[in-house]
Amino acid sequence: MESEKQKGAPLPTIRRLPSYLRVLRRMQEQGREFISSTQMAEELKLEAIQIRKDLAVTGVEGKCRVGYQVPDLIDAIESFLGWDNLTDAFLVGAGSLGTALIGYQGFEHRGLNIVAAFDTDPYKIGRVIHGKDVFPLDKLPDLARRMHIHMAVITTPAAAAQAVADLLVSADIRAIWNFAPTKIHVPESVVVQNEDLSAGLAVLSVRLAEVLNRSESLEQEA
Amino acid sequence: MESEKQKGAPLPTIRRLPSYLRVLRRMQEQGREFISSTQMAEELKLEAIQIRKDLAVTGVEGKCRVGYQVPDLIDAIESFLGWDNLTDAFLVGAGSLGTALIGYQGFEHRGLNIVAAFDTDPYKIGRVIHGKDVFPLDKLPDLARRMHIHMAVITTPAAAAQAVADLLVSADIRAIWNFAPTKIHVPESVVVQNEDLSAGLAVLSVRLAEVLNRSESLEQEA
Repeated sequence: MESEKQKGAPLPTIRRLPSYLRVLRRMQEQGREFISSTQMAEELKLEAIQIRKDLAVTGVEGKCRVGYQVPDLIDAIESFLGWDNLTDAFLVGAGSLGTALIGYQGFEHRGLNIVAAFDTDPYKIGRVIHGKDVFPLDKLPDLARRMHIHMAVITTPAAAAQAVADLLVSADIRAIWNFAPTKIHVPESVVVQNEDLSAGLAVLSVRLAEVLNRSESLEQEA
Repeated sequence: MESEKQKGAPLPTIRRLPSYLRVLRRMQEQGREFISSTQMAEELKLEAIQIRKDLAVTGVEGKCRVGYQVPDLIDAIESFLGWDNLTDAFLVGAGSLGTALIGYQGFEHRGLNIVAAFDTDPYKIGRVIHGKDVFPLDKLPDLARRMHIHMAVITTPAAAAQAVADLLVSADIRAIWNFAPTKIHVPESVVVQNEDLSAGLAVLSVRLAEVLNRSESLEQEA
């Protein structure tokens, strides 16, 4: 049933849920008990109707006049995302991005627990980064089986990513969060989420050019 | 004219251009002179018609039978994205993610040159990270004016992000790449690109739950 419910949720809705959670947690810290979709809309610069539609996927409904009960809604979103349970994950590629992600405190509030790191570099193997051991990459399949790990984060250079993905698939990893700047190919039974920083940078570059051109032409007109 | 052309390009097209560039650069390294949209489609698991439409925004057209000339297309995409010129940028928040981004070699191939970092932490100020100085945050407005900097990267904790964004706006920064896990509010004349890692993690979490549930129910059926 859980999976049916989630299957029905559109991707943009899933992507927006963490931002609702962020607002709700801040409200909870401030001791607020209720919040309306209109207040959340103002905070997040979204439409209230959109927010109500998104939140409906969690099964919680707002009450007339008072809105949503903050702690209930937090629980419902966390449970929908599976963030009420920590998912253990391995990280492959203990370079600077890998180190940053291992040290990032925020993941544990978002259901992700990086339990160990892997690398092929003899200078990195055996080190401890933010309390997590760095193991040789070829130990990964054995450890994944023994520790029942199904999620992995790739933070290797682009050139190494596909070979790492193949190894992860062979180790029965079912979900891959890929930060390497390249596409990886995996069987359909494995879920991949690509975090492509260069896509975001492309948008920013094009928009900055627009903004700067616009102010230049305004100056010329003036 | 440049800005008119770019203004017409849809966001998903802009976001896909870096992946085309990546394939093209690899082809160029292999000495390939031409590539067809069909070959790129296969490589990237996209539709060829989509790729032709996307590439049309750069003004370059493929030739019948042979396809696109690799070096021409690389130049056209880089020029469209403004990645043929380096844009100097400041980075605010010299923590582990900031350090990772300062050290990331890939940005310089993507038009971004982080020239200095800023922080409020006395233990970080005065340090040199991957060759870049860490200055006190209150020096930023003055340095931005003197160095004609218009782009900045925010890698602070969520709680500090809005105050940093306000400071950047006051310093005439026109484009902000925000990695802090929170929304920032800026005037319309400033471009913001949010890199929200928790959105990607949300998608991955929900999909992993689907995949694991599916294999559980298959096991029960068997």
